[in-house]
Amino acid sequence: MKKFNKVAIIGVGLIGGSIGLALKKRGLARLVVGVGRRRSSLKKAEKRGAIDWGTLSLESGVRGADLVILATPVLKIIDFGKRLPKLVAPGTIITDVGSTKAEVVRILERSLPKGVHFVGGHPMAGSEHRGVEFAQKDLFRGTLTFITKTKNTNSAALRTISSLWRTLGAKVEILSPAKHDKIVANISHLVHIAACELVNSAKGDLKYASSGFADTTRIASSDPGLWRDILLTNKNQIAGSLDKYISSLQRIKKAVRRSDAKMIMRDLRAVKEIRDTLKS
Amino acid sequence: MKKFNKVAIIGVGLIGGSIGLALKKRGLARLVVGVGRRRSSLKKAEKRGAIDWGTLSLESGVRGADLVILATPVLKIIDFGKRLPKLVAPGTIITDVGSTKAEVVRILERSLPKGVHFVGGHPMAGSEHRGVEFAQKDLFRGTLTFITKTKNTNSAALRTISSLWRTLGAKVEILSPAKHDKIVANISHLVHIAACELVNSAKGDLKYASSGFADTTRIASSDPGLWRDILLTNKNQIAGSLDKYISSLQRIKKAVRRSDAKMIMRDLRAVKEIRDTLKS
Repeated sequence: MKKFNKVAIIGVGLIGGSIGLALKKRGLARLVVGVGRRRSSLKKAEKRGAIDWGTLSLESGVRGADLVILATPVLKIIDFGKRLPKLVAPGTIITDVGSTKAEVVRILERSLPKGVHFVGGHPMAGSEHRGVEFAQKDLFRGTLTFITKTKNTNSAALRTISSLWRTLGAKVEILSPAKHDKIVANISHLVHIAACELVNSAKGDLKYASSGFADTTRIASSDPGLWRDILLTNKNQIAGSLDKYISSLQRIKKAVRRSDAKMIMRDLRAVKEIRDTLKS
Repeated sequence: MKKFNKVAIIGVGLIGGSIGLALKKRGLARLVVGVGRRRSSLKKAEKRGAIDWGTLSLESGVRGADLVILATPVLKIIDFGKRLPKLVAPGTIITDVGSTKAEVVRILERSLPKGVHFVGGHPMAGSEHRGVEFAQKDLFRGTLTFITKTKNTNSAALRTISSLWRTLGAKVEILSPAKHDKIVANISHLVHIAACELVNSAKGDLKYASSGFADTTRIASSDPGLWRDILLTNKNQIAGSLDKYISSLQRIKKAVRRSDAKMIMRDLRAVKEIRDTLKS
C-alpha cells in the first residue's frame, strides 16, 4: 500500500501504540507522531519505538499529517474530533478506533473542511490491559476490524483505511455505524456487563473461584473509563441486548425451578455446539 | 499418608482419571481399579496409566476396596451410591467428586452398613474438556477441594479424605453440604448459565467474536450431561443466585438508559478492583 508521510496517533495506549509499532515495523509511515496527555506515557511510547516523537499539543501533532488516528476512549475521540477540522489541511484522512460508532461517526462527519475525510474504524483486538507497555506490533494479525460506511464516506479514503488494516493483518468488515453498534452490543458490550455483574455476585466467595471463573470474568479487569464511554455511547443497543439476555436467563431459571431435564439438556447441548465452533 | 490397598474409581474421565494418575504416580495405592460404562474408555485409562485395570462391573470393581471414589456426573453418583451399601465391606470409605453436595450427601449417608463411611468431596478443578485423554497427574495441584461434614460424618474418614486431597496438592475447605451448594451456585453454577446464555445471545454474530468473547464463554463448551445434573440437584440455590444476578443486570441497565456516568464509573471501578485480586 501507499506509504504515509506523517501519521498522528492521538492516544498512544495499547491500541494506538500497537498501530504505531506496526506502522514503523512495516515502514508504512515516514514519520509517526504521538499526541498524549502525559509526557511520561509519550516517553514510554518513544522508547518502545511506537512513535518517533510525542507531544502534548494536538495542534503540532496533527500539523501536516496525511493520516490522523484517534485512539482514545470514545468520549475523548469525540472531543478531539470536534477540534480537528480547524487543525488539518485538505487531503488529510481522519480515522478512529472507538468501540462504538454511531455517535462518533455522526459527530466527526459534521463540519469537516473540503478535502478532509473521516472513516470510522474499530479493531476487535486488545485485552484487559491498558497502556503502551502492552502494545504489540502484531496485535491485529488474524483479528477483525470493523470499518464504517455512510452516505458521506469518501470512497478513496475508505479504500485507504481498509487497505491499512489489511496490511496490519486484520480482516476488514465494512458496515453502517448502526449495524456495527448492534453487533458489538451483543458480542462485546453485553458480554462485558455480564462478566462485571458476575464478579459482583461472587464477591463474597471469591477465594473459592476456579480457573473457569477467572476466564469468564477476565474482561471485568478492563479499563473502567474506556467502558464507561462505551456504555454511554451505545445505550439503546445495550439496553436491548440486556433485555433479551435477562429474558433468556429467566427462561432457564424457570426450567431449573421445575426440574425440566429435557429442556435444560437441549439448551446446554445447543449452546455447546455453537460455542465449539469458536477456536479457543 | 497411609497407603490404600485397593482404590476403586467409578467413572474414569477427566477427574477420575486425574485422581488415578496422581495416586499411581505418588504410590498412594497398591491397586487402582476403574469402573466404567465403555470398554474403550477403560482401555484408554489403562494405557494412560490412570488405572491398573478396568471393569464394567461395579460389583467386581469395588470388591475388597478400602476406598471407593465416585467420579461420574452427579445423578450417576447418586445411582451408584444407592447400590454400594450391598457391595462394600466394613472399613470401606466412600467419597465422591460431585459438583453439588446436599442431595448427594443426604442420599449416600442413608443406609450405609456399620463400619462403612461416606465423605462428600468436590475438587474445584477441571476444564471444558471431558475424558481420560485430558487427565493430568497434577490437575489438583494448587486448586481447592471442598469436603463436606455433617453430624453423621466419621472423623477418621474425614481425616483420611482431607489428607488424600492435600497429598494430591489441593487446599481443603471443610463445610456443610448446604453451605457448599450456596457458594458454588454463586461462583460456578451461575457463571456457567450466564456464559451459556451469552452464547445464545450472540449466536447470530459469532463470526465477529473476539478473544474476550472466547474467554468469557469458554465454559459453555463443557459436558452438557454433567451440567444438567448440577442444575437439577442445586435448583433452589441456583434460582436464588439467578434472581440476584438478574436484579443487578436490571440495575446497570437503568443506569445505562439514564446515562448515569457516575454510577457506571463507580460500578466498573469497584468490579475491576475486585477482579484484579484474582491471579489470572
